[in-house]
Amino acid sequence: MVARHAAVSRQTVSNAFNAPDRLRPETLQRVRAAIDELGYRPNQAARSLRSHSTRVIGCRLLPSNSGGVLDRLLHALCDAARASGYDVLTFSARDDDEEIEVYTDLLRRGAVDGFVLTNTHHLDTRPGWLLEHAARFVAFGRAWGVRRTAHSWVDVDGAKGTSEAVEHLARLGHNRIAFLGVPAGSGVGDDRYRGWERAAEQLSLPVKGLAQRAEDGIESGRTLTRRLLESARPPTGIICVSDSMAIGALRAIEDGGLSAGRDVSVVGFDDSPIAAVLRPGLSSVRQPIESVAHELIDVLLAELSERGRAPARQLLAPRLVVRESSGPAPGASRPPKARRPLPSHTLETKERKQ
Amino acid sequence: MVARHAAVSRQTVSNAFNAPDRLRPETLQRVRAAIDELGYRPNQAARSLRSHSTRVIGCRLLPSNSGGVLDRLLHALCDAARASGYDVLTFSARDDDEEIEVYTDLLRRGAVDGFVLTNTHHLDTRPGWLLEHAARFVAFGRAWGVRRTAHSWVDVDGAKGTSEAVEHLARLGHNRIAFLGVPAGSGVGDDRYRGWERAAEQLSLPVKGLAQRAEDGIESGRTLTRRLLESARPPTGIICVSDSMAIGALRAIEDGGLSAGRDVSVVGFDDSPIAAVLRPGLSSVRQPIESVAHELIDVLLAELSERGRAPARQLLAPRLVVRESSGPAPGASRPPKARRPLPSHTLETKERKQ
Repeated sequence: MVARHAAVSRQTVSNAFNAPDRLRPETLQRVRAAIDELGYRPNQAARSLRSHSTRVIGCRLLPSNSGGVLDRLLHALCDAARASGYDVLTFSARDDDEEIEVYTDLLRRGAVDGFVLTNTHHLDTRPGWLLEHAARFVAFGRAWGVRRTAHSWVDVDGAKGTSEAVEHLARLGHNRIAFLGVPAGSGVGDDRYRGWERAAEQLSLPVKGLAQRAEDGIESGRTLTRRLLESARPPTGIICVSDSMAIGALRAIEDGGLSAGRDVSVVGFDDSPIAAVLRPGLSSVRQPIESVAHELIDVLLAELSERGRAPARQLLAPRLVVRESSGPAPGASRPPKARRPLPSHTLETKERKQ
Repeated sequence: MVARHAAVSRQTVSNAFNAPDRLRPETLQRVRAAIDELGYRPNQAARSLRSHSTRVIGCRLLPSNSGGVLDRLLHALCDAARASGYDVLTFSARDDDEEIEVYTDLLRRGAVDGFVLTNTHHLDTRPGWLLEHAARFVAFGRAWGVRRTAHSWVDVDGAKGTSEAVEHLARLGHNRIAFLGVPAGSGVGDDRYRGWERAAEQLSLPVKGLAQRAEDGIESGRTLTRRLLESARPPTGIICVSDSMAIGALRAIEDGGLSAGRDVSVVGFDDSPIAAVLRPGLSSVRQPIESVAHELIDVLLAELSERGRAPARQLLAPRLVVRESSGPAPGASRPPKARRPLPSHTLETKERKQ
């Protein structure tokens, strides 16, 4: 249809997608105009006219977050990709719109076979754009706020992570366990909040007044913790949406002349490199990033080899890494709920697939 | 010559380099055999037959080091590259030989325009291989142990960084300043060692018995510092080849019931994210990674646009970030060598170019 519209051969249309340099500029422009007018998407047959796969996967490089999770992911992605003969093309973009501009550029140049999306969020326009443009991709992170997604994703069960943190502190005798979170409306933040709330309610622990929220950061964690410790009934355990928040909590505990892990226990999220280096060492929920990377590559390669297959969804379980910042509740002679022996070092949970 | 040897056209030879998929496998094999036999390197004219630039730069992703410098570099490279319309293709490799295998693969596939090398070291075989294969590249790091290099590089003046650390502690009244280094033979480690030695000698400070070396790491730093503190004449200041070593030094000071920044001052290297989060905050020498990335991209793009230009060499100055871990020497009523006012927060040095 594009070929007829632009009065060129089918091969020329294929070249416009896959080897635009083989066409004269005027021809290329005519084909592109026809493509734009018709909203044309190359089908599998047209695609298979491509001379060869690029064996390159595109991935936006996001600024390092507090836990360094996205840097860890990139290393793991490169390892997993290379094991399958692929490499990862990384690019910067200031926001999602600019990311889509880069997608457009890379697809036009035929520079990549597909994409790995990270940092999915509410009202994310990227998956829809990629689906419309028949690009192959997989997302690290669920399609938050969307009931049925038409694309593949791999994610970590954050709620399970914070639930396990609550159970861990409850086994140590804590019965007032607070949560430091980020403002409602972020998919990841809400998920971690729900895990805390669900576990607390299941264990008949109080939640009222114990969830505090602010923008992620050390200073936020410090301010929120100070507020909690100065309240009429301060918590003895604090679970945090991030390690940054947890570091702030440790500071506030120290500021108040208290000892973390003895007077107040703290659990962070992401097990950033700093968690192991701090004194006391910070207990933290660790995402199985290497498994995530392998699943992402497996799912994407399956998408590349077989068009039209059902979207894959993989939800992996994090595990709690226990360090000195979480200890027995003050005054708890022995843990009241310890039906099984306390973990000596690390609570591992098997990865769960859906 | 290759064309005649393989009995094909020049265009076919060009295709063998730039679009091997356009050739029949037998033809490709014949051309490659001729190329191997003749040790052929495509000249600029042959290169310019290439249909288009890939606008992609290849870079091996090295495991995160303690300071996170290489992750910072990748982010900065992506930013600098994208500002010039380029992207960065990252790949894993277990060692230099595997890195060269990936180079071979990427060059054969015409997947990149050039490379950024990192982690240069003594007896590095990669620059020679790339020169032989007429690949365009720039190195982050000097060609250690080579008198005259035929390729371009950008590096940070590590010796200048440790020299400034010595001068900083001397101004604070310290007159026994130790150095925790890595075993001799590493270009980067030796450079940082020389900066300490040179500055100490210039200030007529002792060096004998004050340089301790071990494999990089927190436990090494702890062990070496314990040894120094238990010696007959312990130092009051310690400059470290890395932040990992410095964290170990802080631990040993704490283990000995001493206070870092008051009894013993410590300066690290690389200003890793943890340096600012530790209590006391760790003074550390920071590499100007964003400037390094811009220089690397500028130099590489110049190489891509103009073949045969003289290799560029850029040596950038680091700056010392002063935090609480470095304070006045014990008993120093006022700093004896303070000819100019003490820095309030950060000693900045102008970037120096050679």
